[in-house]
Amino acid sequence: MPIVEIHMLQGRDLKAKQELVQRVTDAVCVSLGVQREQVRIIIREMKDEDYAAGGVLWSERT
Amino acid sequence: MPIVEIHMLQGRDLKAKQELVQRVTDAVCVSLGVQREQVRIIIREMKDEDYAAGGVLWSERT
Amino acid sequence: MPIVEIHMLQGRDLKAKQELVQRVTDAVCVSLGVQREQVRIIIREMKDEDYAAGGVLWSERT
Amino acid sequence: MPIVEIHMLQGRDLKAKQELVQRVTDAVCVSLGVQREQVRIIIREMKDEDYAAGGVLWSERT
Amino acid sequence: MPIVEIHMLQGRDLKAKQELVQRVTDAVCVSLGVQREQVRIIIREMKDEDYAAGGVLWSERT
Amino acid sequence: MPIVEIHMLQGRDLKAKQELVQRVTDAVCVSLGVQREQVRIIIREMKDEDYAAGGVLWSERT
Repeated sequence: MPIVEIHMLQGRDLKAKQELVQRVTDAVCVSLGVQREQVRIIIREMKDEDYAAGGVLWSERT
Repeated sequence: MPIVEIHMLQGRDLKAKQELVQRVTDAVCVSLGVQREQVRIIIREMKDEDYAAGGVLWSERT
Repeated sequence: MPIVEIHMLQGRDLKAKQELVQRVTDAVCVSLGVQREQVRIIIREMKDEDYAAGGVLWSERT
Repeated sequence: MPIVEIHMLQGRDLKAKQELVQRVTDAVCVSLGVQREQVRIIIREMKDEDYAAGGVLWSERT
Repeated sequence: MPIVEIHMLQGRDLKAKQELVQRVTDAVCVSLGVQREQVRIIIREMKDEDYAAGGVLWSERT
Repeated sequence: MPIVEIHMLQGRDLKAKQELVQRVTDAVCVSLGVQREQVRIIIREMKDEDYAAGGVLWSERT
């Protein structure tokens, strides 16, 4: 604890993911006063045909 | 806000997904009185070996 | 299956929630061709101090 | 109801998944006094580049 | 890892919750061959006005 | 998009929550190159009787 789930569109490379989990872990530790090893992060990638805003699939936006 | 997650078995085509997000967005807007652009929808597809009812994987039902 | 989670700010009354689940169930059934009894919906309410957009808690927007 | 989501690293075979959902369903039924058919289980697999502990992606641990 | 989320209607007492997490942890360890300390469980309770099946809120079933 | 869910034990005050969402939003923007307004954060608080590690509820640890 804490456990962080990050829902995002797929397509980022490994380097971006490593930077993401590092920076988010720092942010959580500083704000909540917890130890790094306590922080778990799950990255939930989505295809752009599986995300919609305003009733339109991201893959179908013109 | 609101954010809707729809967990469903994989296999639907793009047309069915577009109709789904359109109709669900309509339903949310009418019921909650929010604007279309406020509504986000995430479709969470599952393989039938990753869903179980009554202790049996969907892929193993006879 | 399908299972729908609706994340929304707290404050809606019972009537609005009933209309919401009814309309969303209709939308899912028509789009995916499933039976009403198959559709499960979970409403996840949040306090406005537990939701943020653009780095600002909803409760702190001026 | 209840609905169980199991977040785990990918790589288990079908036999392990079937045993998992069977045993977890048993555990839920005995503890909560519900019927087997009421219990739904979703397995959420993750690549080891999508899970981090202590700010390090599982795929990058040395 | 693994992380288990159990979505269930509210109303169970502490004893039932302790038995639930103990039995589910056992089930996960035996099936997946992981250590007890690796298993995290989150119990997500819901009011019966926040869960619906077949388009009807659990609190409104007659 | 992205949408971040932070599962954590309840008990933090408003100031800590505001710092948390601000710092996590910064971390996501820098790592993924998205705009602040695109980032949504949901804080999921839990009672310590609803979280378990190693088969023991957090409220029951001695």
